[in-house]
Amino acid sequence: MLDINWRPDRNSPYRLNIQIVNFIKDKIATGEWPVGFKLPSQRTLSEIFCVNRSTVVSALEELAAEGLISGNAGGGTKVINNTWTLMSINHSHNWLPYISSGLHQTNQNIMQQINQAEFQPDIIRMGSCEPSPELIPNKMIQGVLKKLSKSMASLGYEEPKGNIHLRREVCTYLKTIGIEADPSSVLITSGVLQALQLISLGLLHTNSVVYVEKPSYLYSLRTFQSFGMQPSGIKLDEEGIEIKELVDRHRRRKGAMLFTIPTFQNPTGSVMSLERRKTLVDACDRERLPIIEDDVYRELWFDEQPPQPIKAFDNNGLVLYIGGISKNLSPGLRIGWIVGSEKVIERLADIKMQTDYGTSSLSQNVTTELFSSGLYYQHNDIMRKNVKIRRDVALEALKKYFTGIGTWNIPRGGYFIWLKLNEGISMYQLFTKALSRKILVHPGDLYEFHSDQYLRISYSYASLNEIDYGIKTLSELVAEQIF
Amino acid sequence: MLDINWRPDRNSPYRLNIQIVNFIKDKIATGEWPVGFKLPSQRTLSEIFCVNRSTVVSALEELAAEGLISGNAGGGTKVINNTWTLMSINHSHNWLPYISSGLHQTNQNIMQQINQAEFQPDIIRMGSCEPSPELIPNKMIQGVLKKLSKSMASLGYEEPKGNIHLRREVCTYLKTIGIEADPSSVLITSGVLQALQLISLGLLHTNSVVYVEKPSYLYSLRTFQSFGMQPSGIKLDEEGIEIKELVDRHRRRKGAMLFTIPTFQNPTGSVMSLERRKTLVDACDRERLPIIEDDVYRELWFDEQPPQPIKAFDNNGLVLYIGGISKNLSPGLRIGWIVGSEKVIERLADIKMQTDYGTSSLSQNVTTELFSSGLYYQHNDIMRKNVKIRRDVALEALKKYFTGIGTWNIPRGGYFIWLKLNEGISMYQLFTKALSRKILVHPGDLYEFHSDQYLRISYSYASLNEIDYGIKTLSELVAEQIF
Repeated sequence: MLDINWRPDRNSPYRLNIQIVNFIKDKIATGEWPVGFKLPSQRTLSEIFCVNRSTVVSALEELAAEGLISGNAGGGTKVINNTWTLMSINHSHNWLPYISSGLHQTNQNIMQQINQAEFQPDIIRMGSCEPSPELIPNKMIQGVLKKLSKSMASLGYEEPKGNIHLRREVCTYLKTIGIEADPSSVLITSGVLQALQLISLGLLHTNSVVYVEKPSYLYSLRTFQSFGMQPSGIKLDEEGIEIKELVDRHRRRKGAMLFTIPTFQNPTGSVMSLERRKTLVDACDRERLPIIEDDVYRELWFDEQPPQPIKAFDNNGLVLYIGGISKNLSPGLRIGWIVGSEKVIERLADIKMQTDYGTSSLSQNVTTELFSSGLYYQHNDIMRKNVKIRRDVALEALKKYFTGIGTWNIPRGGYFIWLKLNEGISMYQLFTKALSRKILVHPGDLYEFHSDQYLRISYSYASLNEIDYGIKTLSELVAEQIF
Repeated sequence: MLDINWRPDRNSPYRLNIQIVNFIKDKIATGEWPVGFKLPSQRTLSEIFCVNRSTVVSALEELAAEGLISGNAGGGTKVINNTWTLMSINHSHNWLPYISSGLHQTNQNIMQQINQAEFQPDIIRMGSCEPSPELIPNKMIQGVLKKLSKSMASLGYEEPKGNIHLRREVCTYLKTIGIEADPSSVLITSGVLQALQLISLGLLHTNSVVYVEKPSYLYSLRTFQSFGMQPSGIKLDEEGIEIKELVDRHRRRKGAMLFTIPTFQNPTGSVMSLERRKTLVDACDRERLPIIEDDVYRELWFDEQPPQPIKAFDNNGLVLYIGGISKNLSPGLRIGWIVGSEKVIERLADIKMQTDYGTSSLSQNVTTELFSSGLYYQHNDIMRKNVKIRRDVALEALKKYFTGIGTWNIPRGGYFIWLKLNEGISMYQLFTKALSRKILVHPGDLYEFHSDQYLRISYSYASLNEIDYGIKTLSELVAEQIF
C-alpha cells in the first residue's frame, strides 16, 4: 500500500483536480512512479486525498489526455510516459517574463547594433549565419515558380502541422540521414527561430533550466531568454558535450531539457562524435532529460558526411529534432521543421495556429517541389563546394594575419571558425572599432558570458575578397589593443 | 515648484533609475504631467529623489529614448508624447501567463473541435472566416509566379519591417482609402493573427484591460487572452461602439487600449458610421486611449464603399491599423500589415525579428507584384461580386428557414450574418448536433460570454448549395431544441 501524506489544499486558488494532476505529475517526474507503475484504484485515491471520486476521475482523465497514464476498468491504471508531457504547461500557472530588465544589457545592445548594421549595404558581414545572396539558387527557385505557375494548388490555409506533401517529402529526406519519422510527427515552422519560440512557449516554464553547450548560439537568443529560460552551460571536449558533467549537473538542478547543436556547432563549428551521440541519448534516457537537437548546418559538410543525428538513435521519443532550409538553400522561404513524438508535435502545432495561423502556403509549395524534383539534393552538392571555398579563403587569411595572435579550429562543415585570441581584450571595443571600419563580426561573449578571448568568424556571407580584407583588418584592430 | 513626496526605494529589486523612469511614466500616463509640461531641472530632481545626478540623467535618457520627453541643456526638458510608449514593457517586469487554467474551458474545447473539424474534407464549413478555394485567384497568382520566375530578386532574409517595395505598395494602397503613411511606419506581418500577437507581446501587460465591442471576434482568440489580456465589452448601437460607455468605463478601469473592427465587424457584420469614427478618435485622444483598428474585411463591400478607416482621422498616432490580404485575396500567402507611429512599429518589428525572423520573402515578392501590377485592385472588384452572391443565397435561405425562429442583419459587406434566435438554447448542444450532421457553425458564445441566443453564419467558404442545406439543417436542429 502506498504511503501518501499529501492532500489537496481546499484554500488554494487551484481546483482540487488540478492539484491532484500536479501531485501525480510530480510523482512521475521524479521517477517515484516510473513507467509501468500501477496507480491505486480511484476509490483508494479518493480516500487518500479526501475528495469525491468524481474529482479523482477528472484528474485521471486529464493525465490520460496528456498521455501520461492509461488504464481500463479491469486492469487498473498505469504510468505510460514520463518525459515531454511533464514539461507541459497546460494546468499550471505560467508567467513568461518578456524582457528581463538589465540582464545581459550589453549583449542586447550589441545585438541591436548588429541587427541594424546588417541592413547597411556597404557593410562587410562576417557575423551573419546566413548564406550570401550568390549562394542562393535563384535560377533553381525561379524554375520551380515557373512549374508551379502551371499547376499549383489553391493558396488557402494549410493544416496545423503544415502541408502534408511537404511533410512527406521531409520524411523522405530524413530517412536519408537515418531518421524514421511519420508525417504526423512533423511540424512545419516558419524557420528555425520560430521552432525554438514554439518550444519555449509550449514546453518551458519560466526559470526552466536548459542545458546548453558552452559556448552556444542559444546565449545570443533574446527570445529564448525572454521567455524565462535559464541557460546552464556544459563544457565541450573533443567529442562533444561532457556527459558526466551534464548528468551531475542535472541531478542537482533538475533541468528541463538539453539544447544541443551536435553538427557544425554554432559558434565553434565542432562536431559531436558518433559514439558520444549514442552515449548521450542513453544517458538522457536514463535521466529522463529531453533533448532539443538543432541540426540546421548538417548538409553543409565539406569532405565527409557528419555522423547521423542524435535523433537517429532515439527509440523513446526523447529528442525533438529541428531542421530547415535556411542555411543551405534559402532563408527567405522561411521553412523549418520540428520532428518529435506525436503528442508533442500536436501541442506545438496548436500553439503555432494561435501564433500565425500557419506558414506561407506558397513557401511550402515551393519547398515541396524542391524536394520532390530532387533539386534540393542536387543543390546541396553545389552548396557544399561553394561554402568550402569560402572556408579555405578564411583559413588562408587567418594563417596570414592571425598567426601568433590567436588559434582556431578547422571546421569540417558549417559556417563558423571560433577564433581564440592569445590574450583577452575588450570585446565591445573591438566590435565597435570594427563596425566603424564597416566590418561586422560577433564577439565571443554573445555565446558565452564574460568571454573576452573569442571571436566568431563567419565565412558564409561576405565575398572572398571581403573575407580576406575583413580578417586582415580585425587582426590590426586586435593588435592595437594587445600591444 | 512641484510637490513630490515620492522617493525611489533603495530596498527594491529595481534599480533606482528604473524606479524613477516608472514614476515619471505614471505622471505622464495619468495626465498629471501633460504634453508640453516642463520637467524640473536635473539638479532639482536629484534633490527631490535623493539620488545622484547621474541616476537622474540615466532615467531621463531612457525616457527620451522612448520618445516620451525631449530636452536640451538650455530650454529644459518637456513631455512630448503620452500614449504608446507608456504601454511599453521595456523596463518593467512583465509576466505573460501562457494558458490560464480553467478560464473559458468550454470555449477552448469548442475551438479545438472547430480547428480539427475544419480539416475534414466532407464538412460544411459555415464557421470559417476564410475565402472558399474557388474565390482565391489561383490563375492570377500563377501568372505572378510566371513573371517572378524570370525576374525575382534573391530570396534572403528581409529587413525587419519587411520588404521595402511591398511597404511602398501598401502605402500606395492605403492612400486610396484615406490613410497617409510612410513605409517606415508599416510593418509586414505573417497574417493578421500575428499582428495581434506582436501587439500583445510588445504593448500589453498581463491583466491589461482591452476594450472590445460586445460581441467581438477578440473573445474567440486564445492567443490574446493567453497573454493576459482582459477583454472588457462595450455595447454597440446602430452607429458603432457607444462612446459614452467607453469613456465612463475607461475613467474607472484605465484600460490599455480599444480593439475595434469598425468595418463589417466580426461577428455582427455591422459598420461604424463616419460620424462615430470621427467622434471616437477625438474621445480616445482626449482620454489618451490608443486604438487597434482591425480592418481586414474593408475591401469586401457590396454596394458602396464603407467610410474611411478610423486611422484616416488620426492626427496624433493614436491608432494602430491592421490590414492584410487573407480575407479578400489569399490566406495562404500569409501577408498582413500594421501601420502606426514609427516608434511603435520599430518595437513591434524588433519583436517580430525575435519571433520568426521575418515573413516569407517569396510571399512578400508575390504580394508586391500583385499590388504593383494593379491585379490586386482588379481582383477586389471580382471578389466583391462573388461574395455578394453568397450573401444573397444565405439571406434567401434564412428567409425560407428561419422566419419565426430568429432575426438577422443584412450585411453590407464582409463574411458574416449574426443570427439572433427568438429563444435561448444550449449552444453547445446545437454545435455538437450540427457537427454530427457535418455542419460546422460558430455558436455566439465564442464572441460574447454566456450568450445563448446567437449564431454566426459565415457564407465565405461553403458552396451555394451547402449554404442553403446548412441553414436548413440548422433551423431543424434549433426547432428541435425550442419546441
